[in-house]
Amino acid sequence: MTDTPAAWCLEPIGIMRSPYKEKFGIPRQPGLVDVETRLELLPGFDRPEMLEGLTGFSHLWLTFVFHACVDQGWRARVRPPRLGGNTRIGVYASRSPFRPNHLGLSVVELLGVEMGKPVSLRLRGADLLDGTPVLDIKPYVPYVDALPDARGGFAPQAPAALAVRFGPAAQDAVADAPALRDMISAVLAQDPRPAYQADDAERVYGMRLAAVNLRFRIDAGVVEVLAVEPAP
Amino acid sequence: MTDTPAAWCLEPIGIMRSPYKEKFGIPRQPGLVDVETRLELLPGFDRPEMLEGLTGFSHLWLTFVFHACVDQGWRARVRPPRLGGNTRIGVYASRSPFRPNHLGLSVVELLGVEMGKPVSLRLRGADLLDGTPVLDIKPYVPYVDALPDARGGFAPQAPAALAVRFGPAAQDAVADAPALRDMISAVLAQDPRPAYQADDAERVYGMRLAAVNLRFRIDAGVVEVLAVEPAP
Repeated sequence: MTDTPAAWCLEPIGIMRSPYKEKFGIPRQPGLVDVETRLELLPGFDRPEMLEGLTGFSHLWLTFVFHACVDQGWRARVRPPRLGGNTRIGVYASRSPFRPNHLGLSVVELLGVEMGKPVSLRLRGADLLDGTPVLDIKPYVPYVDALPDARGGFAPQAPAALAVRFGPAAQDAVADAPALRDMISAVLAQDPRPAYQADDAERVYGMRLAAVNLRFRIDAGVVEVLAVEPAP
Repeated sequence: MTDTPAAWCLEPIGIMRSPYKEKFGIPRQPGLVDVETRLELLPGFDRPEMLEGLTGFSHLWLTFVFHACVDQGWRARVRPPRLGGNTRIGVYASRSPFRPNHLGLSVVELLGVEMGKPVSLRLRGADLLDGTPVLDIKPYVPYVDALPDARGGFAPQAPAALAVRFGPAAQDAVADAPALRDMISAVLAQDPRPAYQADDAERVYGMRLAAVNLRFRIDAGVVEVLAVEPAP
């Protein structure tokens, strides 16, 4: 029983398609931003019979690889944003991507299954980088998985959201795109800054989200969106 | 972003030590049987600083490989015991081990960390086969992971437990071992039978549990333990 191989080689079963085009700005947990995403199943793992009964479940677990972090290896201790970015904790006590094997785990809402080419799952609330390789899909089974009274260590509740305001140029850019405006607001309200930069009110940050580039700054708990421009 | 490798090779970070010495009889979900188990961390993944802050969380996620099922491959549809063993559903709608990549996911209670040789985690409620390779440990974060109102498909609540009675010989064997007796009762109450054999009241089943071999039969929702003998 204990004579197991030294390594297990796993194949992606699907690839995530999301508006999160770079690591910066991705919500730090699933469910914090109601953005719609899509999991495209790969050939061989997309047979319709594999999906039978799936829509009986409202939520799914995705097990995936933090593929954009693999080259940076892992750390024994990490500095979670929730602790201000200066306090280190053990990597096993965190959900950091810089962990042995770089495995991620996120619960997502299942909106629907589309039997097109590719076969894909419509999801809400995912926090996965565009292009993320997914290794497994499991149903969320509430009688097993839901432990609302569990003790949540340094992250006992969701972080407070910031207020988000659009400056004149940004306001013009989203005037006819309310869904884009809502997505920008929801993502920036999660405070994408590295925690150790949280006091720099003058700093202008840039991030790519869906098909636009954003520029913004944050002062006294308020995000001001300075620019929303089409990404090249 | 999408140019990801065709496979990801992952290393076990630890090996599970549990009383479940064979697949038959393992509870079908974690948390159903309060048996204590141990996760032994492997060299290189057992540095004390990796565990800092872990005991602030009451529960952990274990991501593991269903290693004893890998050789049997995976199926597009499976027959969950919860559906009587005759109804097939898609593998993605199940927690079956016969799934692409053979990844398992279980929430377990953390009882404590032991900085011995090997460094190990004392756990309760795990449903992992002895010797299971574990790929990741994550904290259970209730504000993210606990969704008690999620829709649970074909498994909306825990299965009913069976009554368990000890016949005379079995009763004698556990008379001085109340913890063993409790463990046997809790495991057999989960009904280890393959669902398609559930009507065969004459059949005597055998299973290994911890250091003993059990024999039992099941009639009309009652388990009768016939024998409890030291395993060779």
